[in-house]
Amino acid sequence: MSTIAIIGLGLIGGSLGLALQRGTEREKRGPHLLGWTRSPSSRELARHMRVVDEVRDDLIATVREADVVVVCTPVLATKEMFRIIGPHLSPGCVVTDVASTKAQVMAWAKACLPEAVDFVGGHPMAGKVAGLEAAEASLFDHCTYCLTLSATAKKESVARIVDLAERVGARPYFVDPSEHDSFVAAISHLPFILSTSLVEAVAGSPAWPEIQRVASSGFRDTSRLASGDPLMYRDICLSNGEAIVRWLDEYQQRLSHFRDLVADRQGEELLKAFARAKEARDGWWQSHQERN
Amino acid sequence: MSTIAIIGLGLIGGSLGLALQRGTEREKRGPHLLGWTRSPSSRELARHMRVVDEVRDDLIATVREADVVVVCTPVLATKEMFRIIGPHLSPGCVVTDVASTKAQVMAWAKACLPEAVDFVGGHPMAGKVAGLEAAEASLFDHCTYCLTLSATAKKESVARIVDLAERVGARPYFVDPSEHDSFVAAISHLPFILSTSLVEAVAGSPAWPEIQRVASSGFRDTSRLASGDPLMYRDICLSNGEAIVRWLDEYQQRLSHFRDLVADRQGEELLKAFARAKEARDGWWQSHQERN
Repeated sequence: MSTIAIIGLGLIGGSLGLALQRGTEREKRGPHLLGWTRSPSSRELARHMRVVDEVRDDLIATVREADVVVVCTPVLATKEMFRIIGPHLSPGCVVTDVASTKAQVMAWAKACLPEAVDFVGGHPMAGKVAGLEAAEASLFDHCTYCLTLSATAKKESVARIVDLAERVGARPYFVDPSEHDSFVAAISHLPFILSTSLVEAVAGSPAWPEIQRVASSGFRDTSRLASGDPLMYRDICLSNGEAIVRWLDEYQQRLSHFRDLVADRQGEELLKAFARAKEARDGWWQSHQERN
Repeated sequence: MSTIAIIGLGLIGGSLGLALQRGTEREKRGPHLLGWTRSPSSRELARHMRVVDEVRDDLIATVREADVVVVCTPVLATKEMFRIIGPHLSPGCVVTDVASTKAQVMAWAKACLPEAVDFVGGHPMAGKVAGLEAAEASLFDHCTYCLTLSATAKKESVARIVDLAERVGARPYFVDPSEHDSFVAAISHLPFILSTSLVEAVAGSPAWPEIQRVASSGFRDTSRLASGDPLMYRDICLSNGEAIVRWLDEYQQRLSHFRDLVADRQGEELLKAFARAKEARDGWWQSHQERN
């Protein structure tokens, strides 16, 4: 029986713990789960919620015992965490993470983890309101779980992380780290920036107190991501800036084109563009629902 | 007992009929509801769904009998409808509409409706998937119902439309027509254009088949409006272009600023902007929920 250590017990770390236990209940056997998180009050809550078998106070002792270490800290804290735990990992241990960007994390793993330890990058495509209190066992059900491989990771190490992804109900999906970063910049990072910019533009108006009154479901959905975690967004912008800027430039071109169509009253062209986008979005939504 | 004619039985017209009947059931008395819509198959469906007391085939005879006429046709069809029904309305009749833009509709009403008839502009801030089959009695519950007044409308005429809005469960909100158009451009029209542009940018990429796989709830919500009705969007762009372009310019400025912050790795400023937007959006969402 393997021992898995989850380092960082927020929404993702906590949900991984709960989801792994759910698998265990079904099979009557499964990995032993250790958990560590920085703040004593979060450890208290994690114990209360029973997100892992044992919530530990000592980081080093915890990772030393583990066959698999899942680092679930914020993106920019990941490098430092690799540096701290690196010297204490047992040989043959496999390390993975859950960060929203992968190229940088792969480079940090290479630089900070010992050679006797394999690293497999991970990113489950699931999220909602941040924080351990929102953790739930079903968070990863049917979701795409991106995995990024280094040139050196052994097959058995990869198999262990694939197994972990499947145990929590997700679908492993192998992808190149820079492709991953470009893809998530397009469908996750670009959206939170445009949502934030929408709120900045509208709420920055002197008429906002009145505008608020008429805002309804369309505004609710397009502005939802603006309510996300500012620290996480900042970290993502700093660790995936290049891909984000590339997509922002592409997006602004489309937007400028739209602006001109509206200004020039190009009814035919507007209709075509709206119909084209509707077809693409309906197609995605249908296949997304079929997958889930 | 008054007679209300609903002209155009789509999502909004159909839902108004259902909502007015719900009120009637409670009170055991209420207006008599007539309905007309262009296509015979929609009339068939409207009869089947009992969205009004009588679904009529003859437009002119229908409006002739009515004390209140609610025009629920697409925005650009409204002018022509005013022209057709104008000569046949009974003196003292009150006409209202449900279009997403108001300045243009007010001008059309002034130009095409007879002086013996009062017009009160209306716009219930509720919507979802288009089409009569999606109509439901609760669509307007607690929603803001914008009302725009001409200089000449009599108090009694306004009171009748206020009563109609309240009967369907909505909250009447008086607003100047051009202010209305600017407000909805900000929180409804700008959002559907940015949602459409997002889909155009992302789905236009050669990598879209792979990108699709990783798209999740963030993309789902920010792209939802791109699945809206292309005809309705085109009509809105053509009838509210000036306000939309003004907001698009404001939005693009914010977006460009964001792009520069990401490109220049301005962590502090990014954090401030995300926190500011979160505060504004959380504040709106809380007050929106309290109102509903």
